[in-house]
Amino acid sequence: MPDFAIGVDLGGTNLRIAAVDIDGNLLETITTSTQVSRGRDEVIRELCDAIRGMAAKYSQSRKWLGAGIGVPGIIDKRTGLLRESANLPGWHEYPVREEIEKQLGAPVILENDANAAALGENWLGAAAGMDDMLMITLGTGVGGGIVLRQQIWHGMTGMAGELGHMTVDPNGPPCGCGNNGCVEQYASATAIARMAKEAVDSGKAPDLAHISSGKAVSARHVYAMAVRGYEPAQEIFQRVGWALGILMADLVNAFNLHMYVVGGGVSAAWDMFSPALFAQVHRRSTVYGATAPADPRTHADGSHMGRPTIIARAILGSDAGLYGAARIPMVASEVMEKTHLGAQGIRLNKD
Amino acid sequence: MPDFAIGVDLGGTNLRIAAVDIDGNLLETITTSTQVSRGRDEVIRELCDAIRGMAAKYSQSRKWLGAGIGVPGIIDKRTGLLRESANLPGWHEYPVREEIEKQLGAPVILENDANAAALGENWLGAAAGMDDMLMITLGTGVGGGIVLRQQIWHGMTGMAGELGHMTVDPNGPPCGCGNNGCVEQYASATAIARMAKEAVDSGKAPDLAHISSGKAVSARHVYAMAVRGYEPAQEIFQRVGWALGILMADLVNAFNLHMYVVGGGVSAAWDMFSPALFAQVHRRSTVYGATAPADPRTHADGSHMGRPTIIARAILGSDAGLYGAARIPMVASEVMEKTHLGAQGIRLNKD
Repeated sequence: MPDFAIGVDLGGTNLRIAAVDIDGNLLETITTSTQVSRGRDEVIRELCDAIRGMAAKYSQSRKWLGAGIGVPGIIDKRTGLLRESANLPGWHEYPVREEIEKQLGAPVILENDANAAALGENWLGAAAGMDDMLMITLGTGVGGGIVLRQQIWHGMTGMAGELGHMTVDPNGPPCGCGNNGCVEQYASATAIARMAKEAVDSGKAPDLAHISSGKAVSARHVYAMAVRGYEPAQEIFQRVGWALGILMADLVNAFNLHMYVVGGGVSAAWDMFSPALFAQVHRRSTVYGATAPADPRTHADGSHMGRPTIIARAILGSDAGLYGAARIPMVASEVMEKTHLGAQGIRLNKD
Repeated sequence: MPDFAIGVDLGGTNLRIAAVDIDGNLLETITTSTQVSRGRDEVIRELCDAIRGMAAKYSQSRKWLGAGIGVPGIIDKRTGLLRESANLPGWHEYPVREEIEKQLGAPVILENDANAAALGENWLGAAAGMDDMLMITLGTGVGGGIVLRQQIWHGMTGMAGELGHMTVDPNGPPCGCGNNGCVEQYASATAIARMAKEAVDSGKAPDLAHISSGKAVSARHVYAMAVRGYEPAQEIFQRVGWALGILMADLVNAFNLHMYVVGGGVSAAWDMFSPALFAQVHRRSTVYGATAPADPRTHADGSHMGRPTIIARAILGSDAGLYGAARIPMVASEVMEKTHLGAQGIRLNKD
């Protein structure tokens, strides 16, 4: 039987735990709530119980490679502390890894959730089998994960891939991070709602106010109206695509990867924003598209030196982070094998 | 005696060839002109003669690891064709590598000159000994080179590190690449001269017209006037720093490297543009500086999780590309040794 690993997606709303084998087969999933009211300790206890149960059950017939845990926030990879998490209030500066390892009696690997999602799409999703790719995740905020040589690129302190705070327009809307014009201010669900409110307040989009029946306009409302052909809503998604296209062209020029994946909840509106995205990428990137045929760097087939640069939607949806988290110990195990350290599988202390 | 390699810097004006040992000691340098009038074939012949001479001379007592050749332009790494070179007219689509290898009777490695310069600064310059760094080269244009794990990051088709065409302002000045607001339109010597001309034409900088005595204002003129305290000239360099700072913040947010080096001729004006650069990086990057002490990602000492992000001037000047070119076969040899393919040194066919 193929080896397996356990992936955990510790989100602000749900806690999901899955056992996945190295061929990508899902053996089992558990989903519970991570409501703040249940408390951090209760969530950690449940998480450890689930990992312990799955590990015991499947390691009778397979080698357990370990557990990877995707967390929404900034992790200090050295200490395993959760430095900041907008979606997990009360977990600030919490030694997540230490607590889990203490209760579980086995080592685990923490990872930022956007990084885990990128690894998931690289393993089983839109960019399956590609050596190098990156993923932009459009949710409440905008996150990113970069995969080079099939491993997450962490940078010096684990802060690589903070793509949501790259600048689209230096004089654009202020961002909570202190910058102006971050892509997050154009392409997150929050930004879409803000742009809708601005359109309503300026009197340009009366029907957007109508559909939300007095409540705040949500990104979903705006999308629904755009699909129905309502132009003020469509213009908001053109702005989303414009900003993403500028970001994407920058990323193409800097990294020259084979594939760039757009995921997260807002990517459901791909049909509405992607034309504007591609228009900007064609115009602003050195290798993508055929907008400047006089430029020998750009071939007429939209590729560079015969190899296409692919920009596409993610395909795993909310499972990307879960699969990616399970993939992390598999990658670590592969690296250990390559460096001749061997990989004997992980055992719980009580074994 | 330590092993050695040969580096070639094939510039638009000069051809420089150096034998360098693996400890970074310069054994010998030859510099000649690459004037267009001499013709491509003559330049290649001279280049091969020089490599052959140095290889024969020093390989009597040392192992020759090969030759690396830095070229200003876009190289197809697979075929060794020079696809485009603004500084080497007449070399377009020329099979540089094949020609050299044919005449020399030994394999050589071609590299983009900005990539070679980055590797040089990583080996013996400002970022010596660092695993991961990147370099922005400010010359006639703006180039870039990215070094990850002490190797040049090429991307899929060798186009990674085209940092000069990353967008600073989506509505900025048009660029020859088809984009608007590329950093090259703010921070190259060409851009500085253009901004000076604009200032003169608008009547805002009469003294800039004066110093150039009727000829076009050069970046050097503008710098000389800025040093003397002439405000319109200083404002131009503030614009240079503003654009570089926005670019740098994007690169910090995407890559999270330990060090970012600014080189090339325009970097001589570091004192004039770097304050504006740092102001933008502080404001716009997630990990650099101490502008937002309430943000736990940003530590008061200007570092992230105790590790500083360093942005500094290059220190090797025009030698960076030459040393970097020599370093390329050394890196290739180290990789071969690690992968147990062995590295026996390279011999000329006639041996």
